[in-house]
Amino acid sequence: MTVAPEAVPPQIQLMTYGPDGFAEQAAVTASEIAVTAKGPAVRWINIDGLGDIPTLQQIGRTFGLHPLALEDIVNLHQRPKVEAYDGYLFIVLRMPVVSASRLETEQVTMVLRHDHVVTFQERPGDSFDPVRHRLRAHGGQIRQRGADYLAYALIDAAIDAFFPILETYGEQVEDLEDDVITQPGKRQMAQIHTLRRNLLTARRTLWPMRDMLNALLREESTLINAQTLIYLRDCQDHIAQLIEMIETYREICSGLIDIHLSSVSNKMNEVMKVLTIIATIFIPLTFIVGVYGMNFDPAAGPWSMPELGWRYGYPAVLITMAGIAVALLIWFRRMGWIGRGEDDKR
Amino acid sequence: MTVAPEAVPPQIQLMTYGPDGFAEQAAVTASEIAVTAKGPAVRWINIDGLGDIPTLQQIGRTFGLHPLALEDIVNLHQRPKVEAYDGYLFIVLRMPVVSASRLETEQVTMVLRHDHVVTFQERPGDSFDPVRHRLRAHGGQIRQRGADYLAYALIDAAIDAFFPILETYGEQVEDLEDDVITQPGKRQMAQIHTLRRNLLTARRTLWPMRDMLNALLREESTLINAQTLIYLRDCQDHIAQLIEMIETYREICSGLIDIHLSSVSNKMNEVMKVLTIIATIFIPLTFIVGVYGMNFDPAAGPWSMPELGWRYGYPAVLITMAGIAVALLIWFRRMGWIGRGEDDKR
Amino acid sequence: MTVAPEAVPPQIQLMTYGPDGFAEQAAVTASEIAVTAKGPAVRWINIDGLGDIPTLQQIGRTFGLHPLALEDIVNLHQRPKVEAYDGYLFIVLRMPVVSASRLETEQVTMVLRHDHVVTFQERPGDSFDPVRHRLRAHGGQIRQRGADYLAYALIDAAIDAFFPILETYGEQVEDLEDDVITQPGKRQMAQIHTLRRNLLTARRTLWPMRDMLNALLREESTLINAQTLIYLRDCQDHIAQLIEMIETYREICSGLIDIHLSSVSNKMNEVMKVLTIIATIFIPLTFIVGVYGMNFDPAAGPWSMPELGWRYGYPAVLITMAGIAVALLIWFRRMGWIGRGEDDKR
Amino acid sequence: MTVAPEAVPPQIQLMTYGPDGFAEQAAVTASEIAVTAKGPAVRWINIDGLGDIPTLQQIGRTFGLHPLALEDIVNLHQRPKVEAYDGYLFIVLRMPVVSASRLETEQVTMVLRHDHVVTFQERPGDSFDPVRHRLRAHGGQIRQRGADYLAYALIDAAIDAFFPILETYGEQVEDLEDDVITQPGKRQMAQIHTLRRNLLTARRTLWPMRDMLNALLREESTLINAQTLIYLRDCQDHIAQLIEMIETYREICSGLIDIHLSSVSNKMNEVMKVLTIIATIFIPLTFIVGVYGMNFDPAAGPWSMPELGWRYGYPAVLITMAGIAVALLIWFRRMGWIGRGEDDKR
Amino acid sequence: MTVAPEAVPPQIQLMTYGPDGFAEQAAVTASEIAVTAKGPAVRWINIDGLGDIPTLQQIGRTFGLHPLALEDIVNLHQRPKVEAYDGYLFIVLRMPVVSASRLETEQVTMVLRHDHVVTFQERPGDSFDPVRHRLRAHGGQIRQRGADYLAYALIDAAIDAFFPILETYGEQVEDLEDDVITQPGKRQMAQIHTLRRNLLTARRTLWPMRDMLNALLREESTLINAQTLIYLRDCQDHIAQLIEMIETYREICSGLIDIHLSSVSNKMNEVMKVLTIIATIFIPLTFIVGVYGMNFDPAAGPWSMPELGWRYGYPAVLITMAGIAVALLIWFRRMGWIGRGEDDKR
Repeated sequence: MTVAPEAVPPQIQLMTYGPDGFAEQAAVTASEIAVTAKGPAVRWINIDGLGDIPTLQQIGRTFGLHPLALEDIVNLHQRPKVEAYDGYLFIVLRMPVVSASRLETEQVTMVLRHDHVVTFQERPGDSFDPVRHRLRAHGGQIRQRGADYLAYALIDAAIDAFFPILETYGEQVEDLEDDVITQPGKRQMAQIHTLRRNLLTARRTLWPMRDMLNALLREESTLINAQTLIYLRDCQDHIAQLIEMIETYREICSGLIDIHLSSVSNKMNEVMKVLTIIATIFIPLTFIVGVYGMNFDPAAGPWSMPELGWRYGYPAVLITMAGIAVALLIWFRRMGWIGRGEDDKR
Repeated sequence: MTVAPEAVPPQIQLMTYGPDGFAEQAAVTASEIAVTAKGPAVRWINIDGLGDIPTLQQIGRTFGLHPLALEDIVNLHQRPKVEAYDGYLFIVLRMPVVSASRLETEQVTMVLRHDHVVTFQERPGDSFDPVRHRLRAHGGQIRQRGADYLAYALIDAAIDAFFPILETYGEQVEDLEDDVITQPGKRQMAQIHTLRRNLLTARRTLWPMRDMLNALLREESTLINAQTLIYLRDCQDHIAQLIEMIETYREICSGLIDIHLSSVSNKMNEVMKVLTIIATIFIPLTFIVGVYGMNFDPAAGPWSMPELGWRYGYPAVLITMAGIAVALLIWFRRMGWIGRGEDDKR
Repeated sequence: MTVAPEAVPPQIQLMTYGPDGFAEQAAVTASEIAVTAKGPAVRWINIDGLGDIPTLQQIGRTFGLHPLALEDIVNLHQRPKVEAYDGYLFIVLRMPVVSASRLETEQVTMVLRHDHVVTFQERPGDSFDPVRHRLRAHGGQIRQRGADYLAYALIDAAIDAFFPILETYGEQVEDLEDDVITQPGKRQMAQIHTLRRNLLTARRTLWPMRDMLNALLREESTLINAQTLIYLRDCQDHIAQLIEMIETYREICSGLIDIHLSSVSNKMNEVMKVLTIIATIFIPLTFIVGVYGMNFDPAAGPWSMPELGWRYGYPAVLITMAGIAVALLIWFRRMGWIGRGEDDKR
Repeated sequence: MTVAPEAVPPQIQLMTYGPDGFAEQAAVTASEIAVTAKGPAVRWINIDGLGDIPTLQQIGRTFGLHPLALEDIVNLHQRPKVEAYDGYLFIVLRMPVVSASRLETEQVTMVLRHDHVVTFQERPGDSFDPVRHRLRAHGGQIRQRGADYLAYALIDAAIDAFFPILETYGEQVEDLEDDVITQPGKRQMAQIHTLRRNLLTARRTLWPMRDMLNALLREESTLINAQTLIYLRDCQDHIAQLIEMIETYREICSGLIDIHLSSVSNKMNEVMKVLTIIATIFIPLTFIVGVYGMNFDPAAGPWSMPELGWRYGYPAVLITMAGIAVALLIWFRRMGWIGRGEDDKR
Repeated sequence: MTVAPEAVPPQIQLMTYGPDGFAEQAAVTASEIAVTAKGPAVRWINIDGLGDIPTLQQIGRTFGLHPLALEDIVNLHQRPKVEAYDGYLFIVLRMPVVSASRLETEQVTMVLRHDHVVTFQERPGDSFDPVRHRLRAHGGQIRQRGADYLAYALIDAAIDAFFPILETYGEQVEDLEDDVITQPGKRQMAQIHTLRRNLLTARRTLWPMRDMLNALLREESTLINAQTLIYLRDCQDHIAQLIEMIETYREICSGLIDIHLSSVSNKMNEVMKVLTIIATIFIPLTFIVGVYGMNFDPAAGPWSMPELGWRYGYPAVLITMAGIAVALLIWFRRMGWIGRGEDDKR
């Protein structure tokens, strides 16, 4: 059990609540937790920062955690899962970290017993503020309910934090759909790649969270009562909806790549057509003027470039060349290269 | 539970019917509903518009809806599903909204009890007119049957509304198949993309509706009698057929993209061939005429461009160049560039 | 229940057979059927054409068909399926229609009772002639067996009619494999597309027929006896084989598209190489002859194009240019552009 | 039941063995088989060639085969499968035929009874020689065991015959991986296509053989004793390994096509760069020399090409052109076209 | 049972441990093993090198191994699996071999009995050093536990050895993501291919190891006690995480190929644009200067190139040509070829 060098020291917050009251303590020490367990109240012990192994081990002993569970708390690359240990459920969640361009997720581990929930987070800052507000508010039903409902509320908050992020991706997809046809380039391709990567991360997080919820519903643990199960089923719907959004965006992204490649090819086609039209018209004409630029001596005989001395030789050549150019333009139009170029821009 | 700013206020229509009669009331108020429940008749309460939370909450209390069900009614991005609550089934449907180019779907939530069906819609206008006509018509079997049959009829109407839309897509696919070979361009690619997006939307809607129907058939709810199950099984067939149409069109669209890319490449090939043929013929000839355009002084000595003074120098050069051009044309034909160009248009 | 305008009026054929005899009646009327049911014989009532709703409804009443079954008979876009109704099995089949280039399928609906089979077809002409021949022939085992064996024989005939069609597709695949490498073009791409579409249609028809057979085998209906099940299991093998052929051809088609795109690119490469070789050799040479075509006055001074007056100036320029051309050719060969062009044709 | 015209007449070999002895008879007649069944020995009756229906029917009667089984023996395009008939197992296998470039498989049908195995092959020559050697050898355990072990040994021999073939394909994949990057061309694409086709054939054969083995293990037939099941489980491992090899090679082939397309594009890029560099340098220079090749009369006035008469006009033009060429080369290097071209070859 | 020629002779190490002590013996002979089995201690017999069949057969007899198990030990291309034999579990593992560029795996076969574990390796050098350290260390819990825990520890070590390798691949993916956009070339494509191949190998190894673990957990063998099952469940999590990493990298690699192809096309587009701009500007100008390079004799008449004698003919031509060049540049800018070229580099 080792700790990353950048890990922050644990800070413990304690919330105690029940139908009759609510108390909140910040900066509790690990030894204080042990003694505060009393009365019918529900407690939420939240630990931010995993940078101090002895403190975590003390908390582990206090709550009787299995060594493997403690190891999972510290190892920050866990997949979401639920495991039933003797007397408690051990749940691993991931919630999104809002950062500049790349989607990252933070691990939250949760221990659920009948009268308390312990959550371990990598660092301060989380998606649980809506739950805190509801706990602090008077008259919310959350205070009427047990620790299992608190666990549900936290899971729900972690899942719901993905919605605004996916909506942003939806907007990015819309923007890219326009851009990729009108002005295909390197930038769009890089944006699509970043978007796909983020969708991949979201999917990699949400699929096992779905499995975790399924396991929780199937588990038939005595720690979760029937009423809360209805709420967890609602969580499942949310995750199904998120996964569906992800899959849809992923499919659209794949389509965008096809369009991008096709747009690039179409553009190359346009460039090539311009080159070909210009070259095909002027190369033969340049040949003709080259012919009459030859220095054969008209004095050498009647077959030696007599045209140069004709009265209307020059205008005749000019008219001939104009005729060739017009004939080629007509042929290009018939090939659809000129008319169709316009058509492509419709 | 919040409401979108563009949400319209609820309008309630009530239809009461039975083997013996039929009554229809528009613009019922929420408080009136509570008292009209009497007799062996079946009632259909339809609410258009979800813009007024207190009204919805009153309706919720009247029909004893779970808070989560009420939340699902207002949240407009639900996936189709069925949930068994105490004494009623809660069903979420989606029906297509016919609009210009992009397929959209509208959410319909349905509460089924043994003697009534309540439907909640986002806004007026739906796919249920065929059901209304059958209810109003004399002698239809729908009046002989219970609320479960009404629920079936509404689900069936929502599903059947997808058929004309998919038939339109089928026609678009046919049109694109011709276009993409004869005149590949940006426009076709954008059309294929729009089509794929719409198919994706349709699929995203119909897959969970299939799951919903499966759940309904498996549920063995006492609210649905055996006769109605046969009809729901028929709905399943319709959805299977729709999904099959979608998958087929999706596969054809993928094929069209391949063809599009190949057509664009083929076209580029044609353009390049023309350029290459013209350039390859005239570049050497232009070089030759350039040679005889050099100003070396024939007077400098016998090796200094004596050709310029030959009697048949000029015709000899012209004939040589014609020979080179003919030789190149023969070589191109042998390479298949000229003959095969024609062949491609077959 | 509406009828397509091009639907033909129903024509009814009746075959009655048993171990002891065989009778065949064409052009039976709907009212005659009702009374012919008697004795231990098996009857096959075949109805070609669904263009007359009252006749069909009369037949439906005669055989006690459920309204949904009757609707499925008329609706011509059903997926193959089997449904167990009270006292009869309702089976939907599809058989191929042999037409010019696009594969189409015709719907056959079948009602199986213990002593008769009723089949409904869209129009005259079907794949059942082998069954008719076996019924008419003396001593075939089909006359010894019941209606369930007749149903098997008809299903088997519908499935077997796909074999010659898929063999044709196999031959097309072989032809395309050669063509696509030697002479890639628009035509091949269109042929691949048509082939893929037909394979898609065949697959869309056969997958649900497989499900239908599985359902029939699982159904454990008293209408099908154990001996016939062995034969139906054989049908399953045939369908599995057909589906395998389809999947194989589909994969090969995908491979052909890759080859096609690659062939087109390779060809473009060859074209570009020719252009580049010609242009790269002659453009510098043309520049050189251009230089000596400039009209600077040699009389202006010793630096003003003195070469023009040199005795061996002209041959020196010609030799220099030949040297440049040879050097470039050697460089191209080293780049592999000339040797490798040959290599590609191996 | 028809026979292909190229089918060879059946030749029957009989091997009788037991813990105590071994006897081998070639060219047995169909009528002799009937009487040789006696004693505790195990018999292997092998029939090569299916060209004589009456002989096969006689054998069928001797061993009491179902008409469908007999039909499957003659129909040479069966998928591997196992079917339990009354008193015997009917197994269809496929073994590879080693031929020049395209993988083909030959059908072997096997009838397993408690004291004999009958095998039917399309033509002489098979993969069973290792089994024959073990039967002929003294002291091999195969003689100690029953007919079920013989069936296992034959199935195992048919499966193992795929290993050397797949190893050849593995070597082809390795070779192609090198070729496709260094010298992409038509040949490689055709080789990849042939390889994919062969892998497809192997896969199409081995997947149903895996299903067949699964069915055999699940069947719980009394004809196969528990000890032999362990050996059949080993066969399953071999097939799983073969399928894994196939899937891996298939994936690598897909990757090779991507590389091929990319190599072709990269090569085209190189060709285009050469053309563009040459053309871009010389086209402006040729324009300049063209300017001074114009025949404007310097005598017409001071603005009419006075440069032609300047003392250093000619060297000035040459230096200007050299400057332009150097500037363009520097620009190309900065664009990365010249330096990067080298880089690509690393 | 044959042996590869490069196979090394077996070297046997023996570790005996228990809560009370630990003993380690290197270079044990096969006959010594037979007699050391005594006391409550757990023994780990590790055999490095499989080059001596008689030794292996002696070990096989000592531990009562089935012939098929012994064959699997020597056959080095086994898929990971677990098989329950009478009294022992036979487990096949694969661990990564750290080599230069291509990922390879080495087979480890393991025999688990209630008081010992026998491992067979292809050659010395393995991933088990962490386990050896823990065994040698005082006070580790591994000494308190049975042979099943040792088996778990070895499986865990083999799995964990994949983590650093996959992290390396993750870094390669990151590097390639940058390279492929900025400087697409042959090298990147080859690197992506190697990476994909390695990922394929890792996947091919880990998928069956997952199945193996599932089988082990489902097996309910009396050889594995409940406590150890919790640890094996943890192994499953690790494998799930590894497989997820592999799938993610594979998807990113697929995306990189798309980007690569698109980058190559974009680059070609840029090259073509430069060529087209240069050629399109200078080809018409060169034609014009060619016209005035023709040698028509101004003396032949008033229509014979009178411009050559005009006072401002030369400057007029120069200005005209400058005008054409500017007009073309403006048109290119409007086409987006010049401005957009810059844009692409953003």
